[in-house]
Amino acid sequence: MKTYSFCNDYSEGAHPRLLQALAAASNEQNTGYGLDKHSARAAQLIRARLGGVDADVHLLVGGTQTNLVSIAAFLRPHQAAIAAHSGHIATHETGAIEATGHKVLTAHAGDGKLTPALIDEVLRAHGDDEHMVQPKLVYVSDSSEVGTIYTKAELQALSASCKQRGLLLFLDGARLGSALMAQGNDLALADIAALVDAFYIGGTKNGALFGEALVVCNPALKTDLRYLIKQRGAMLAKGAVLGAQFAALFEDALPGDALFFELARHANAQAARLRDALHAMGIGFLADSPTNQLFPIFPREALERIEARYDFHRWTELADGRIGVRLVTSWATRPEAVDGFIADARAALSAPAIPA
Amino acid sequence: MKTYSFCNDYSEGAHPRLLQALAAASNEQNTGYGLDKHSARAAQLIRARLGGVDADVHLLVGGTQTNLVSIAAFLRPHQAAIAAHSGHIATHETGAIEATGHKVLTAHAGDGKLTPALIDEVLRAHGDDEHMVQPKLVYVSDSSEVGTIYTKAELQALSASCKQRGLLLFLDGARLGSALMAQGNDLALADIAALVDAFYIGGTKNGALFGEALVVCNPALKTDLRYLIKQRGAMLAKGAVLGAQFAALFEDALPGDALFFELARHANAQAARLRDALHAMGIGFLADSPTNQLFPIFPREALERIEARYDFHRWTELADGRIGVRLVTSWATRPEAVDGFIADARAALSAPAIPA
Amino acid sequence: MKTYSFCNDYSEGAHPRLLQALAAASNEQNTGYGLDKHSARAAQLIRARLGGVDADVHLLVGGTQTNLVSIAAFLRPHQAAIAAHSGHIATHETGAIEATGHKVLTAHAGDGKLTPALIDEVLRAHGDDEHMVQPKLVYVSDSSEVGTIYTKAELQALSASCKQRGLLLFLDGARLGSALMAQGNDLALADIAALVDAFYIGGTKNGALFGEALVVCNPALKTDLRYLIKQRGAMLAKGAVLGAQFAALFEDALPGDALFFELARHANAQAARLRDALHAMGIGFLADSPTNQLFPIFPREALERIEARYDFHRWTELADGRIGVRLVTSWATRPEAVDGFIADARAALSAPAIPA
Amino acid sequence: MKTYSFCNDYSEGAHPRLLQALAAASNEQNTGYGLDKHSARAAQLIRARLGGVDADVHLLVGGTQTNLVSIAAFLRPHQAAIAAHSGHIATHETGAIEATGHKVLTAHAGDGKLTPALIDEVLRAHGDDEHMVQPKLVYVSDSSEVGTIYTKAELQALSASCKQRGLLLFLDGARLGSALMAQGNDLALADIAALVDAFYIGGTKNGALFGEALVVCNPALKTDLRYLIKQRGAMLAKGAVLGAQFAALFEDALPGDALFFELARHANAQAARLRDALHAMGIGFLADSPTNQLFPIFPREALERIEARYDFHRWTELADGRIGVRLVTSWATRPEAVDGFIADARAALSAPAIPA
Repeated sequence: MKTYSFCNDYSEGAHPRLLQALAAASNEQNTGYGLDKHSARAAQLIRARLGGVDADVHLLVGGTQTNLVSIAAFLRPHQAAIAAHSGHIATHETGAIEATGHKVLTAHAGDGKLTPALIDEVLRAHGDDEHMVQPKLVYVSDSSEVGTIYTKAELQALSASCKQRGLLLFLDGARLGSALMAQGNDLALADIAALVDAFYIGGTKNGALFGEALVVCNPALKTDLRYLIKQRGAMLAKGAVLGAQFAALFEDALPGDALFFELARHANAQAARLRDALHAMGIGFLADSPTNQLFPIFPREALERIEARYDFHRWTELADGRIGVRLVTSWATRPEAVDGFIADARAALSAPAIPA
Repeated sequence: MKTYSFCNDYSEGAHPRLLQALAAASNEQNTGYGLDKHSARAAQLIRARLGGVDADVHLLVGGTQTNLVSIAAFLRPHQAAIAAHSGHIATHETGAIEATGHKVLTAHAGDGKLTPALIDEVLRAHGDDEHMVQPKLVYVSDSSEVGTIYTKAELQALSASCKQRGLLLFLDGARLGSALMAQGNDLALADIAALVDAFYIGGTKNGALFGEALVVCNPALKTDLRYLIKQRGAMLAKGAVLGAQFAALFEDALPGDALFFELARHANAQAARLRDALHAMGIGFLADSPTNQLFPIFPREALERIEARYDFHRWTELADGRIGVRLVTSWATRPEAVDGFIADARAALSAPAIPA
Repeated sequence: MKTYSFCNDYSEGAHPRLLQALAAASNEQNTGYGLDKHSARAAQLIRARLGGVDADVHLLVGGTQTNLVSIAAFLRPHQAAIAAHSGHIATHETGAIEATGHKVLTAHAGDGKLTPALIDEVLRAHGDDEHMVQPKLVYVSDSSEVGTIYTKAELQALSASCKQRGLLLFLDGARLGSALMAQGNDLALADIAALVDAFYIGGTKNGALFGEALVVCNPALKTDLRYLIKQRGAMLAKGAVLGAQFAALFEDALPGDALFFELARHANAQAARLRDALHAMGIGFLADSPTNQLFPIFPREALERIEARYDFHRWTELADGRIGVRLVTSWATRPEAVDGFIADARAALSAPAIPA
Repeated sequence: MKTYSFCNDYSEGAHPRLLQALAAASNEQNTGYGLDKHSARAAQLIRARLGGVDADVHLLVGGTQTNLVSIAAFLRPHQAAIAAHSGHIATHETGAIEATGHKVLTAHAGDGKLTPALIDEVLRAHGDDEHMVQPKLVYVSDSSEVGTIYTKAELQALSASCKQRGLLLFLDGARLGSALMAQGNDLALADIAALVDAFYIGGTKNGALFGEALVVCNPALKTDLRYLIKQRGAMLAKGAVLGAQFAALFEDALPGDALFFELARHANAQAARLRDALHAMGIGFLADSPTNQLFPIFPREALERIEARYDFHRWTELADGRIGVRLVTSWATRPEAVDGFIADARAALSAPAIPA
């Protein structure tokens, strides 16, 4: 049994306030399939933050599900999505997008972020050639799969480029809370709503038992979306379970900001402490992440000592034998666990080498 | 605002014991994607009731999802499912099965139940003709969409017939709790496990926030099922949320039977009270249901008076102007609400006709 | 070895003029994938008959292929086609439409023809219910699968009804030649083009080696269709093979009418001779077909005598033991074979019964 | 109007012997859907060359169609194909494989050929991880999309590696004739049949109007294949049209070898003359192709002069401004056209530069 897990940000359940909201709603009778008052209120709370964009909000259960429902809804059969080669839909969804009939085209993005130039490379390779799929939707993640974030200027450039080229822009926000609370971020929900055709706000990785709030900004994409949600098995019978959680995350009667942002701030703060401490020990990183995913590089022996006490994923092995790993903090990460990890890492790094 | 809803059995949230189990698990760190200890324990508790059948148990979120994941996993592209024409996959899943590429063939079953004879009708119409789809999987629901249940003899006959004809037998148990606790039922989970290739045990409609436990009995159908679950967006990141609920439903340390059965018994008991009282008032029924769905037929005027106070669905309008409705009770139905409905129905039926 | 086959209208190859056109084009170098001069000329010849409708014409290889390419191109994932329950897409295409993700809804049409009333029945059963598929496209066949044809008034009524209800109207013309040349027909290609959203003109069953000319009349359905044709494996590399055949069928420099109509007239004439002769023998028919498919009903013993000499399909067995069969004539049916069949049928019917 | 086209090997129609066979069969009555005597004979002629492998032979219309029917038939929904990144299914089939639900994984193969090492790279990236697709089928083309061929040793190594790793090996033989007749080839049809699970023999690009003979060697892959062919719209009604062509290509009563091989030899010979002549002029090549596709690299000015007289495709532009093009010869390429091209290329290359 390990001391603590930094494997991911879905190890723990839900924040107590969400559990209370759930328990309260549990005693009521609510209309099914997302047509309940809690879902309506959650949608209203989210829409209030969109700067006047008249979006539709749908609450779904998980990220892969939201990606496949949306992309299958938005594309015609011959159209393809463009993603960074590290994009979640391109790698870790068991071909969910292809299972709906659509190819995922990829561009190599060292930092996990697409740019207009990378997209244009893909477009140039496809021309107007009916023997190839037609690129139609750009998929970006904020934060990205390697923890990086988009600046407002970067997202504006993507948005302008997509509009000009007739491409839809879709933002996977499974870790959007962490992105928006990250140092260096200058985007708000309203900016995103103004710049993309659709995006989602991840609850699963930020304090909810589960749940992703899909926000459809482009009016042309709104039609019949509930049919498509139902068809893919993504319409929760007891939708109030989603509604109550998202309402608790976004209600602003709280002192300070909504819980959604507080929780993300906590995850980022714990990650920052880890990052700063490791940096002070001379540890380098695979990617420069200001969010709750860190990719430090450890010498093998030190790593093995740390692994004896903590759970996390090995990510890659470098040519020099050092190993890049992924450490993830969450809304629930205990500060003392971070303290412990830092102390143990320092000890592991300073320990004498094990004689061969 | 109506007094009470008999619309369905997913109006309320979860039983308090499940909420407690959830809250407890919420504070832990658990492995993701269903590989946690709660899911393992839930699977073990379910397997212990299968009479020695060495089944795989997977916990999914919802019924449509479980149907589409399973059927798409079990069939080759040219193969079709056979369902009663009232079967859920044939009517109320927005073409979820067809969206995975498979036709759903139907047979008219007045009582919502397939028989070997009905299946043979479908087979005769298809022969070994490669210009038609190949029927390969028989889909039955227990209880059925009109509240009826299969007896052991009926399921044995279906099972034998399917085996002989090379068909897979799949049982949708979204309302299996109510079926197994119904008057006239002689099936147990172990019988079902011995007779079908795969089935599922519905949590959503029997005390859980959500969740269906897919039980795969046929070894040939087990391979790689987790890939297929992930691909369809049906693998919950925080699988412990499902595990904790199903463990709470099936742990047998409780006095009497497991909670799963107690809750179904409650729903059935409330339905029985409604049925008996309506019967005593001279009300007829569309179907002879011993489970938690009733289909009484009301004169229009009386119905409109009842509808002023209660929510439920109109089902069909008869030639004589009377209207068949659906009343559904649940694990959470309050006995005093049933009392109230009975009193109000009696009053509505005995009230003088509204002058034209 | 049987004397002659009345099994279907694709037993023979192509009319000699098409073979000559093919042989001539075979020596040229032509652009691939339907962008050749023969395909362009065929499209032009067909468009010239559409009464000014500015349609796109695509030449595909076969009927199932044309149905699946078109329907998959025209529908969003949650939308369904409506067909007569005898419709080809509903029965004899091995679930080709479902394999592209779309449900085929059926209405029972005794004579193989849909009507606004039948369509409305389907619509009423589906309402605006996102738990059911959304009916969006009406599929009709002219001639139908039982040989019947639509009158202009009938097609106008269907067209008006579809427009009013937001449905697309798609006409499968695998046997359109025979329909247009049938006694009682008052439709021309230009009428059809004005009334439907898309249709196709069957070459396979009317003198070509293969080939169906898809005519897309509704501008909204034209976009990117060549992508969809290619994606389904339906774009012939040597498209000139299709172009040369359709050009030969529709060029009007010939004395009299285009070959396409002459060939259909021949098939109908041979069917008419069969029909009249059988009628004179007192034989009844399953359907009242004025086209090249006949469905006579024979006493079993007489049938067995006829089957000893001729190939054709048994269609159905009546309660009284008599058997309905399908006889199909084609552009290539030899008149003397018809004479022979008539004589042999007469003899079989008048022969003394075989003693039991 | 250009003098001649070297665009591809499907510019011309069919060899006269095939047209004669077609015309002869056209007058007969044949059973439909590939159950005719010509298709049977073609299958028999092909099977006779498979060294005793008891394969099923199906005649399909085109290459994309054959790829999508086969791969969709052979894989379960979560399984993926592995192809060279230049593989036809990965690039030029408009996502036909993805449209059947399967991802195509690619490995960068400079010469268009997969190796066990390249496949292992893909496997290593996927592990036994249910969050990623499961690689299951290896797709190779012989000749490849850049004209290269597999040696027997290479195909044996691939076959052994696939068997060991539980992968299916599928060979796209759209240009198999040219591969088998190429200098350096040591494979025969019997070798391929012994080494792969399924492959096909391309008729379209080697003398037929169209047609690919799918050869299924692995008994486990044979079941119900005709259903899948029909479902994808790939079963030609007049199958005798395919049968007569393939019988004419493979009948060995001819002096010397079967026509199939003679035609490929002709295409290769013309390509060889082009290659040798261009090589003598100092022209380099993008790939070292012994088959009927050549990829010479021309200086821009010379190229523009040549393009004024000949049709062919530009392939890529090099950093130094030179341009790689693709020249394709066919069974029908006229030797004098090759002579003309060589003379014109020589003139273009030696012409004085156009003053800026």
